Amino acid sequence: MGVVRVSPGHDVSPGHDVSWPFGGLVLLLFLVAGCAAPEEPPNIIVIFADDLGYGDVGAYGHPTIRTPHLDQMALEGVRFTQFYAGASVCTPSRAALLTGRLPVRSGMASDGSRVLFPDSRYGLPASELTLAEVLREEGYATAALGKWHLGHRAAYLPTRHGFDVFFGIPYSNDMSPATNPRWDRAQGFPPLPLMRNEEIAEEEPDQHYLTPRLTAEATAFMEAHQDQPFFLYLAHPFPHVPLFASPDYAGTSAAGLYGDVIEELDGSVGEILAAVRRLGLERRTLVVFTSDNGPWLTRGVEGGSAGPLRDGKGTTWEGGLRVPAIAWWPGTIAPGVTTALASTLDLLPTAAQLAGATLPDTLVLDGVDLMPLLTGTQDAVRDTVFYYRGAQLWAVRQGPWKVHFTTQSAYVGDIPVTHDPPLLFHLEHDPAERLNVAPQHPEVAMRLQQLAAEHRAATPPTPSWLDAVDSP
Amino acid sequence: MGVVRVSPGHDVSPGHDVSWPFGGLVLLLFLVAGCAAPEEPPNIIVIFADDLGYGDVGAYGHPTIRTPHLDQMALEGVRFTQFYAGASVCTPSRAALLTGRLPVRSGMASDGSRVLFPDSRYGLPASELTLAEVLREEGYATAALGKWHLGHRAAYLPTRHGFDVFFGIPYSNDMSPATNPRWDRAQGFPPLPLMRNEEIAEEEPDQHYLTPRLTAEATAFMEAHQDQPFFLYLAHPFPHVPLFASPDYAGTSAAGLYGDVIEELDGSVGEILAAVRRLGLERRTLVVFTSDNGPWLTRGVEGGSAGPLRDGKGTTWEGGLRVPAIAWWPGTIAPGVTTALASTLDLLPTAAQLAGATLPDTLVLDGVDLMPLLTGTQDAVRDTVFYYRGAQLWAVRQGPWKVHFTTQSAYVGDIPVTHDPPLLFHLEHDPAERLNVAPQHPEVAMRLQQLAAEHRAATPPTPSWLDAVDSP
Repeated sequence: MGVVRVSPGHDVSPGHDVSWPFGGLVLLLFLVAGCAAPEEPPNIIVIFADDLGYGDVGAYGHPTIRTPHLDQMALEGVRFTQFYAGASVCTPSRAALLTGRLPVRSGMASDGSRVLFPDSRYGLPASELTLAEVLREEGYATAALGKWHLGHRAAYLPTRHGFDVFFGIPYSNDMSPATNPRWDRAQGFPPLPLMRNEEIAEEEPDQHYLTPRLTAEATAFMEAHQDQPFFLYLAHPFPHVPLFASPDYAGTSAAGLYGDVIEELDGSVGEILAAVRRLGLERRTLVVFTSDNGPWLTRGVEGGSAGPLRDGKGTTWEGGLRVPAIAWWPGTIAPGVTTALASTLDLLPTAAQLAGATLPDTLVLDGVDLMPLLTGTQDAVRDTVFYYRGAQLWAVRQGPWKVHFTTQSAYVGDIPVTHDPPLLFHLEHDPAERLNVAPQHPEVAMRLQQLAAEHRAATPPTPSWLDAVDSP
Repeated sequence: MGVVRVSPGHDVSPGHDVSWPFGGLVLLLFLVAGCAAPEEPPNIIVIFADDLGYGDVGAYGHPTIRTPHLDQMALEGVRFTQFYAGASVCTPSRAALLTGRLPVRSGMASDGSRVLFPDSRYGLPASELTLAEVLREEGYATAALGKWHLGHRAAYLPTRHGFDVFFGIPYSNDMSPATNPRWDRAQGFPPLPLMRNEEIAEEEPDQHYLTPRLTAEATAFMEAHQDQPFFLYLAHPFPHVPLFASPDYAGTSAAGLYGDVIEELDGSVGEILAAVRRLGLERRTLVVFTSDNGPWLTRGVEGGSAGPLRDGKGTTWEGGLRVPAIAWWPGTIAPGVTTALASTLDLLPTAAQLAGATLPDTLVLDGVDLMPLLTGTQDAVRDTVFYYRGAQLWAVRQGPWKVHFTTQSAYVGDIPVTHDPPLLFHLEHDPAERLNVAPQHPEVAMRLQQLAAEHRAATPPTPSWLDAVDSP
């Protein structure tokens, strides 16, 4: 389950030599043996796409979307093939990333509303310790750029959760009267605000320019803080619908507007990495690229692709939570591809460890430090994945096995079906979840059911903050 | 639609610079400008997998099958994302590759039997001009190693179709009494024969060792003919079921036995390319890796993955005919990824051109020379793909558009459905064929229907040779 690494002249498969074409040229993978951890805390950049599917990136097999910068980042870093978002929709997924905790623990999961809306009154509780708070305590400059979606009233904004600065939109880019009559200004809700810190800088910004504007803000932040450790959380609002690409990209992708949007995000990644290098920070900056959940398939040609995986956003099938993920840190992370399990839940513990932060003893975390995996000292760092729909545990993965208690497609009908006995899939033999092997492996199904029962008992959901809304 | 190429310091996306980490190191893609065609005809190696799906290779996005050699070949060569087999099942697909002609022209397509069986009496007609015949006429040594499946009676064997030597099995590896009672020896049919030229060398060879044995034969052939142009057609019998891996690979893949088998094929590719380099032939050898059709999905965990594409082997959905394909020729083919359309039908015209062969004026070909695409002098070389089921044209692609007249899944029910009006898909926006856009684009649907009508009129099927069998 570890990172596959190849060095020139080493065997990569049993009993077979690999001949390499260019003596000094290391093309795909090379071994960085025994990299020492750097002495000062590294910068940390998390680039988070919105609704980008497992199959929407060139390196993950999309036939017509071109992502040369992400593909290059993957060649220089570690590409994960079994990496999970913390939930299959926006708000709980973002809460998971920023807290390292399952959303049922932070009140960001509900059996009612699945995400926050412009009429929601609450957000991520102040009691939650965020990645930004952990790092700011260690002297990091911190910025949240892009989409927040963890509470848009003042008490819940990024600036109240450890970020020095915020520039972006407080919720999804379709939560606007321009897109959805539900949010008609006449109802007293704000139009889509572009905020700087806690002020509304613009109403209904031209979304064609969101990606380049956020990229420019990110670059400026890095330049301003090049002599200090920084944490940059760049949460692009796209490819969540409605889709917009700038004139530089509009009409350029073979894959249509959806492709234009992804290719512009790819360009943004290229600009971020170029800035890291231009500032001479590449050997002390960890960059992680991933997505908040799977593709919004019901959006048709404006939705993406889960590649080989089943279903998409909103579901507990693999297409809902398994996302592209690349970790990049030249000199520290050896290039390769890993099938090891990992999660956005792991980013807080990883960053805390890198920054030398001491976390409160009382903090209950669901993430683990990824560095032993990324530096090759361990083959695996986590063994389980918990798949929630709202506040309900619908599936559990342990090793290659996934037990699925209740399923609901994002597609037609949309009716939950509870399976008794539950379904069982071997995800490494059958990534598409086509073959229920529960009858052949009753003991595995039993073990995972027991694991689920133990997890449920140990994880009582806290009251949800998602459902409370203003009266209209 | 051309090959995406990137050279250090060049822009790869509108308005954005790409920063490259290592001055002289070219990691992903580099430009080979103005490579002159080599003076002597190149060696040609076609490595043909059996039932390998679009999604079964690491470079095509499989999460747990590891194919470091194919991935490396893809980084050094051109990886196609829209490359098509000539048919969605074995016999006609192989006929298409070896003749450059649609199987309806050669009698290798039928509305009855879809492939040849051990009780079939005929095979590829002697009147067909094969790739091997074209190249042998130009002084090439020629070898067919692996699976043939174009007629197992003496008159139809590879040695009667332009190959100096044949070592392999004359039809599929499941056409044996050991696998299928239908081929019970008691009926007078042979058990699975391993043939050398026209003799049966072994009956029921141990299939665990087929891949390494074929690889060793291939290497020996190359060594024996290193001073002469050669054509090596290495048609691996796997991952067609039943699956077997040698002890070196059995139990090593996270993806189970299917993964073991693919990873052993990947190791074979690595050995072939290593031999090319060891013999100093890498600058005068074109190597093409591809598959005869999509994954046999109904085989469950012993079938593969079409990745993001719909359905699999046997169907006219993309998963049936679109296959992984990599072309490799250091110094002549510039590394990159191409979305340009191409087909196994194109291999004969490409090889003929490279060898300086003059084809008969009367020969009706369905393929085109790929070298202008591979060397970058043209962005595209073909605009259409014709999807046959047996002798019936069920779908046509032109540019990004595919019109689908009749569909039939490989899955449950298996009943053909004729669509009136036909379905229309934009394959570059919607590679999964989820969205019928015929209502929105009636003029495109009309144009493709007209194209199909013209093709049908110009392509009368010849009598099929597939259906005639011995009486039991």
